[in-house]
Amino acid sequence: MMKLYGYWRSSASYRVRIALALKGVEAEHIAVNLREGEQKGGAHISRNAQGFVPVLELEDGTQLTQSLAIMDYLDATFREPALMPADAVLRSKILAASLTIASDISPIQNLSVLNYIKAEHGQDGEGAKKWAAHWITQGFTALEKTAQTYDTPYFMTHEPRFFECCLVPQTYNARRFGVDMDQFPKLKEIDALCCEHPAFIKAAPGNQADATP
Amino acid sequence: MMKLYGYWRSSASYRVRIALALKGVEAEHIAVNLREGEQKGGAHISRNAQGFVPVLELEDGTQLTQSLAIMDYLDATFREPALMPADAVLRSKILAASLTIASDISPIQNLSVLNYIKAEHGQDGEGAKKWAAHWITQGFTALEKTAQTYDTPYFMTHEPRFFECCLVPQTYNARRFGVDMDQFPKLKEIDALCCEHPAFIKAAPGNQADATP
Repeated sequence: MMKLYGYWRSSASYRVRIALALKGVEAEHIAVNLREGEQKGGAHISRNAQGFVPVLELEDGTQLTQSLAIMDYLDATFREPALMPADAVLRSKILAASLTIASDISPIQNLSVLNYIKAEHGQDGEGAKKWAAHWITQGFTALEKTAQTYDTPYFMTHEPRFFECCLVPQTYNARRFGVDMDQFPKLKEIDALCCEHPAFIKAAPGNQADATP
Repeated sequence: MMKLYGYWRSSASYRVRIALALKGVEAEHIAVNLREGEQKGGAHISRNAQGFVPVLELEDGTQLTQSLAIMDYLDATFREPALMPADAVLRSKILAASLTIASDISPIQNLSVLNYIKAEHGQDGEGAKKWAAHWITQGFTALEKTAQTYDTPYFMTHEPRFFECCLVPQTYNARRFGVDMDQFPKLKEIDALCCEHPAFIKAAPGNQADATP
């Protein structure tokens, strides 16, 4: 069986958990405790030189990193349901929206960046929260504008797919950082629909074995 | 003809210029002056709600955003030479390395983040340079470790492809921010090989019509 090294509250791990659950593919979940810095220990660095989660270990021992690259692998290997449409333009647009989250929001409000602005820029918890909320709000404002131009129940699609694997974990983070989701009615609606879906319920942070109160 | 809205020194624009040149696909290059804030003006926001470059406008007027999503479209549409290998594992690894640059380095040292830490965290030019150098060094350290494990002249490949479209612009930025590339001998070697390649020469910032001294 494949192994997924992750952490219950890591949004990148959460993305891959949703993708696996949408595909109906089982993996053994192995917790890497980010709170205790386990991701920077030798064992995890040997899996991923960046010291990040998630890492997907295939049955032959191959280790894959970066959530979107893991999702790309899963989509190429376990075809149904397809996370990405076949049409090159629609695929590019869905990937662009996913990258708005995975490149332009998530890494900037990541733990390592928050630790840096606390240590080097003298920011306190409030400053870190303001920082995270700023980048989430900026990215979500652009995504909401795009989402509004489509009539589909999900983002350009009729089923939750690649983009929703990114949106739901980022919305979870948005709430943690005090971002008011009422500013983004379409994104909020998509998130609410997803949160009733069995794959998203299975993947939710609170439902993982390593979750703490 | 397709139109590429970009800026000579934007690393995301530079990535797409390389991809187009590798494919031998012509596009009309239209400058969006980031120094003068043109990317935040109404004309550009209507092309990309995020107010970022690049935007690739197709012949039918469809506008694509996010450099990696544009490259995905180009690779699906103009097949030869393929920027990505067919093998799902190798493809995932090359995408992961590309995302290390496009998600974990580039957006954090982007103009809007540098402006924020100057305005909100009281950082001066030196603080901004230290910030950028920190994230570039961290990402390149991990990439160098991975690159060292492959004997191929390029990153896991025998020709410059998807990853090199990301590496060369990031190396250009690394030098701007004073990062010593001697720390990353394999990355430096790949960059040097690329910089002799006609496609990379054509795409280089200094060779664009909007370049300034």
